[in-house]
Amino acid sequence: MRNILIIGAGRSSSSLIEYLLQKSEQENITLTIGDLSAELAERKCRGHKRARPVAFDIFNETQRIEEISKADIVISMLPAHLHFEVAKNCVALNKHMVTASYISPAMQELDKAAREKGLVLMNEIGLDPGIDHMSAMKVINDIRDKGGKVILFESFCGGLVAPESDTNLWNYKFTWNPRNVVLAGQGGAAKFMQEGNYKYIPYNKLFRRTEFMEVEGYGRFEGYANRDSLKYRSVYGLDNALTLYRGTLRRVGFSRSWNMFVQLGMTDDSYIMEDSENMSYRQFINAFLPYHPTDSVELKLRHILKIDQDDIQWEKLVELDLFNPDKIVGLRNATPAQILEKILSDKWSLSPDDKDMIVMYHKIGYELDGIKKQVDATMVCTGEDQVHTAMAKTVGLPVAMATLHILNGEITTPGVHLPISREVYTPILKELKQNGIIFTEHEVPYMGYNPQNVNG
Amino acid sequence: MRNILIIGAGRSSSSLIEYLLQKSEQENITLTIGDLSAELAERKCRGHKRARPVAFDIFNETQRIEEISKADIVISMLPAHLHFEVAKNCVALNKHMVTASYISPAMQELDKAAREKGLVLMNEIGLDPGIDHMSAMKVINDIRDKGGKVILFESFCGGLVAPESDTNLWNYKFTWNPRNVVLAGQGGAAKFMQEGNYKYIPYNKLFRRTEFMEVEGYGRFEGYANRDSLKYRSVYGLDNALTLYRGTLRRVGFSRSWNMFVQLGMTDDSYIMEDSENMSYRQFINAFLPYHPTDSVELKLRHILKIDQDDIQWEKLVELDLFNPDKIVGLRNATPAQILEKILSDKWSLSPDDKDMIVMYHKIGYELDGIKKQVDATMVCTGEDQVHTAMAKTVGLPVAMATLHILNGEITTPGVHLPISREVYTPILKELKQNGIIFTEHEVPYMGYNPQNVNG
Repeated sequence: MRNILIIGAGRSSSSLIEYLLQKSEQENITLTIGDLSAELAERKCRGHKRARPVAFDIFNETQRIEEISKADIVISMLPAHLHFEVAKNCVALNKHMVTASYISPAMQELDKAAREKGLVLMNEIGLDPGIDHMSAMKVINDIRDKGGKVILFESFCGGLVAPESDTNLWNYKFTWNPRNVVLAGQGGAAKFMQEGNYKYIPYNKLFRRTEFMEVEGYGRFEGYANRDSLKYRSVYGLDNALTLYRGTLRRVGFSRSWNMFVQLGMTDDSYIMEDSENMSYRQFINAFLPYHPTDSVELKLRHILKIDQDDIQWEKLVELDLFNPDKIVGLRNATPAQILEKILSDKWSLSPDDKDMIVMYHKIGYELDGIKKQVDATMVCTGEDQVHTAMAKTVGLPVAMATLHILNGEITTPGVHLPISREVYTPILKELKQNGIIFTEHEVPYMGYNPQNVNG
Repeated sequence: MRNILIIGAGRSSSSLIEYLLQKSEQENITLTIGDLSAELAERKCRGHKRARPVAFDIFNETQRIEEISKADIVISMLPAHLHFEVAKNCVALNKHMVTASYISPAMQELDKAAREKGLVLMNEIGLDPGIDHMSAMKVINDIRDKGGKVILFESFCGGLVAPESDTNLWNYKFTWNPRNVVLAGQGGAAKFMQEGNYKYIPYNKLFRRTEFMEVEGYGRFEGYANRDSLKYRSVYGLDNALTLYRGTLRRVGFSRSWNMFVQLGMTDDSYIMEDSENMSYRQFINAFLPYHPTDSVELKLRHILKIDQDDIQWEKLVELDLFNPDKIVGLRNATPAQILEKILSDKWSLSPDDKDMIVMYHKIGYELDGIKKQVDATMVCTGEDQVHTAMAKTVGLPVAMATLHILNGEITTPGVHLPISREVYTPILKELKQNGIIFTEHEVPYMGYNPQNVNG
């Protein structure tokens, strides 16, 4: 009997726990499910005889060491900055570990010790990062196996609302952390590379420089650039690629409308607005508009954003009830971004029957025998309900699968890793497929922009 | 014989030193002029028998204490963050001190000790801050003396090029620190108050929400909002004023054109551009434009900024030689802001015969006997040459004057101060006037926006 310790029983752990419990007899495993909330840990165990709930305080070192000692492998679903405490103990106590988070510099420093002890510390094995790495590396390595050379890499991912639940003009609802959506793109220019040229997009233009793409059966999407598209250049072995672009997917039109908030300054999280608690939604907008004794907030907004009479942008704002003088913000010492999040949450929260949808899109251009070609790989995953969301499945299942493969000695390369090797992605992509998370690959004409290399 | 220690002999000390040397016989003073550069200290002494140059290292505590001990009062013209070291010693050694910089929290903490010892630590007594405080407080106190109540306070200041030296399409040259000009407005929304309403302008709109104003004999100017217009609300006793706005003056049209750089992302100082050293000016622009294999940088720029064929904005860019493919940036690991500063400095540096100009404009609205009135006060000061610049005069003269008044026991209120009391501003404004720095006050119709208090 092997024991898996799962720390953190929040939303993203649901599918993960369920998958492992289903396999618990066959794999001869038990789960220890720890959460700060004993009630949440209990609920996630669902009374299963192979699951044991624990009220778990990550800052209680005695308990941490005790529970990690009893485990054969540890899954940390904690917020990213808390993984390191667990990882240190895992290395000291000779335990493997799995997380869905980016490798922090501190985590990376455990690499040597992990390798010496033969331990696998697998990270970035959720959705994004996670499935994006695995599916991209599969295409990239398939191309290399044929003797091709990758020259273009573009990769997009978005957490959206499923078409059947898409009921507002923005074609968007919050399916994950709304705060991240409001702050998206802030903190520096987006940097990427096109045909050998470094390109930079400032925040104020980010949502107007999208590109469109089509997913068969799901229609059109648009992508805006992520902060650093060059992050995995060397990790993926793409140092010679001419185009590198990573982006976030939305339904067409979202970004152009979102840009209204950016232009007005409503996404700013750097200062507190005066008397935010008693401010009405209408006063919130008006704080970003020039003063006038008699002109309406509506006309001032139309004028500053140059919104024509018949522009759908206007309807999108009205739909949010932004001009309501009676709705009160009710948040003390709030930033514009916090207030905007509140206003959007009124309208963009999922209803009980709503389903979410994850879309991933890779475009990988390559040269083979002197000819430029391209493979596009797409994946769409729709949630089943509010527990079995597409987000929970796509984040949790690869974590669960990797855990079992490590436990069973099928993923063995020791050290601090992200899932880019065949050893990891081959079995997991196969199992994800069996669980409905399926990539479709198409050969398409090479989209590279610049056969003659003129002008840049 | 009294001794004044002046620490820092840079550009802003020229007029200050000259003023004190001229008065040295009559006032029976000697000057000790300290600078890290012995040569600079020597040069600023001009061989005057009452001036002694010292190679002065602010981080040499022995020397610092020795020189401060020998002085009756100390003027620090060092960069703002270095004043505190001097101030500590001054308090310990029982010396008065004068600076032209904002009062730092550390400086403020010396208030109690200074008061106990009867020492004056006078700060913010240059141009802005400095002359702005004094001239505004004079108008405000005059209104209060009449029984009026201030309801509107707007104040603008700009360092510009004099009309006779205004030779480019931007009507602007760098007359002070170019870096501050490039970074102006960054780091948070501009906050102010209009007719009782808090208003916030994000950086991306800051240079499009200017207001125009006229200075008799000098034509039109425009002002954009400073970061925090509410900073001196309580200090000036304006807690009940309905409108508070502080801004920076430029010639009309500058801000709209500057906004092009903001929109493109060229003023960003938060990241380093790849291979900035070998980048051409043309490549610099192109890094902020979408990739295209054949379209020109020119057309892409016109398109993204929506610049019509006959728009003068275009000529302003051409004048800067921005599209030159042969001019190389030549700065290693440079940010966009640093590169832009370099490009602008090629064209916006003062020629040997150029003169600068300082413009200050206060609008002060008040209520007296139930009637709303307004006083506008304006000041224009033009430089004489590259040493006797308007900036050096307006920064240095009030510092020199305050120093003498403190030394002569005419300014006596002990503690950490800025120049808002009559004791300080009455004699200094009078002397500034004698030196050509003259405020003109006009009664004008009240500009307040909102007689009926509708809509906000």
